Amino acid sequence: MQVIRNVQKLRSLLKLSQKGKTLGFVPTMGALHAGHLSLIQQSIKENQLTVVSIFVNPTQFGPSEDLKKYPRPLKRDLQFCRKLGVDFVFLPAREEMYLKDHATFVEIEGLSNLLCGASRPGHFRGVATVVTKLLNIVQPDLLYLGQKDAQQAIIIARLIKDLNSPVRLKVMPTVRAADGLALSSRNIYLNQAERKDAAVLFQSLRLAELLIKNGAQDTARIIDRMQKLIRQKKSARIDYIKIVDLRTLQPMQRITGDCLIVLAVWFGKARLIDNIFLHALKKTKGRIKDPWQNSNTFSLEGI
Amino acid sequence: MQVIRNVQKLRSLLKLSQKGKTLGFVPTMGALHAGHLSLIQQSIKENQLTVVSIFVNPTQFGPSEDLKKYPRPLKRDLQFCRKLGVDFVFLPAREEMYLKDHATFVEIEGLSNLLCGASRPGHFRGVATVVTKLLNIVQPDLLYLGQKDAQQAIIIARLIKDLNSPVRLKVMPTVRAADGLALSSRNIYLNQAERKDAAVLFQSLRLAELLIKNGAQDTARIIDRMQKLIRQKKSARIDYIKIVDLRTLQPMQRITGDCLIVLAVWFGKARLIDNIFLHALKKTKGRIKDPWQNSNTFSLEGI
Repeated sequence: MQVIRNVQKLRSLLKLSQKGKTLGFVPTMGALHAGHLSLIQQSIKENQLTVVSIFVNPTQFGPSEDLKKYPRPLKRDLQFCRKLGVDFVFLPAREEMYLKDHATFVEIEGLSNLLCGASRPGHFRGVATVVTKLLNIVQPDLLYLGQKDAQQAIIIARLIKDLNSPVRLKVMPTVRAADGLALSSRNIYLNQAERKDAAVLFQSLRLAELLIKNGAQDTARIIDRMQKLIRQKKSARIDYIKIVDLRTLQPMQRITGDCLIVLAVWFGKARLIDNIFLHALKKTKGRIKDPWQNSNTFSLEGI
Repeated sequence: MQVIRNVQKLRSLLKLSQKGKTLGFVPTMGALHAGHLSLIQQSIKENQLTVVSIFVNPTQFGPSEDLKKYPRPLKRDLQFCRKLGVDFVFLPAREEMYLKDHATFVEIEGLSNLLCGASRPGHFRGVATVVTKLLNIVQPDLLYLGQKDAQQAIIIARLIKDLNSPVRLKVMPTVRAADGLALSSRNIYLNQAERKDAAVLFQSLRLAELLIKNGAQDTARIIDRMQKLIRQKKSARIDYIKIVDLRTLQPMQRITGDCLIVLAVWFGKARLIDNIFLHALKKTKGRIKDPWQNSNTFSLEGI
């Protein structure tokens, strides 16, 4: 495994070692956990070369956000990548990625201002810009993202389509702790009580799933039930809970087909996000008892 | 020469025919003239394959601008390309380039709002977006732009740097008619009298050059002399005349080194732009009589 900090050097090394080999790419901000692991393993499985980038991207953090204290356990991350069989780790300094007079940004209108974008202005502009840069640097065949960051994956899918980026996106299922909490680098901000409380997020998503499978259609009522469940936890402060269309991220009034149930909730200093996707089976002539499948995960191949 | 209207088809054809060959790319809006010719010839000279795109990009036109009446002499353009030895002409329809739900735009802050960007809000956002798309589709080694559109070239140079686009930009000198008028697809909008008057643009740029070579340093006075000259022509309506720094496009108060003299002037329904670049020789110990060289053309390799 080679650790490379310089854009030009990575480019020339990739040129030398690629020669027709397929290249998988997993962009990360480090602090790797089993969620990242699943992305990296998938890339190694499906490609002859795998590049992992570790870069805490400043342009996706707001001025009052956790850029400075974001965890950076670099040694552990590199061991983690080496063990898995990553070929190249791209580890640029801030100055290598952003020149002093950097002025170019990629914006995805509409999608970027909803959900997390409403709470974190400029966040997805920063994400879209750094992903565009990384795709230009690495030029992978396949890009791996996690469904935990559903809005991010949907926005990047839109970007790839709109800018004709020559890459295929694969979204991998959210990896969860035993109690259902989605793995996140930010979980380390939780104290013991908050960590325990945070399991309510997945419970509330499963509650929504159950209600919908049992025929509930009024999204306001479903969200109300989720809120009530989450508010039982003292340390929880809800940012948003929404049931939206996967493609437009617009709220649905009634459950009439596929839907993405998304939420962001604060526990102490940690703002956690999670989601599940409910995929409605097309109705056939005969009634089907459970019209839902693949609950929890979505594919963006079609959108 | 192959004429291709479909993104996927162009991609697979380029993949088949490239195989290590260098690829030059000349993006155009058609209505080709000797300025485009110089770009295409340069690309053919320097590359084993040359792609020319012809696409009147709607996102770079304002609502009251000339998108509809922009000249589209397609047959002539294709003959022109065939004669020169172009390998592929990419000729996408609007729907091939912009999906109905297109939402992604590339913005270059600062540079995009100055000069032509001040008169044409959103223009450079459209240019940056379509160039990003075309670069992703064609994936050329070299990109050729004309210096006549100096601000465009400077913005694209910034974009390539900021987004790590794997392409080298070459800016070719402005091609002029016998009376000095810069060739432009929009010159056909001029009636006979306006066409005659429009020669004053280059005369005013040469006047500025002469004044500066003779020691003039106060840009306000130089611009004033240019204005007076241009205003002698009845059909001329000045949009702007500026003397700016090549890198930042910010106005210079005094001529202290390299400078770009840029202008936009209406003649009837045609808004024409032109510029020259004055390159200051570094002062050596001995005095040099003429401290300027390469007047008229600039290189963006260094910025």
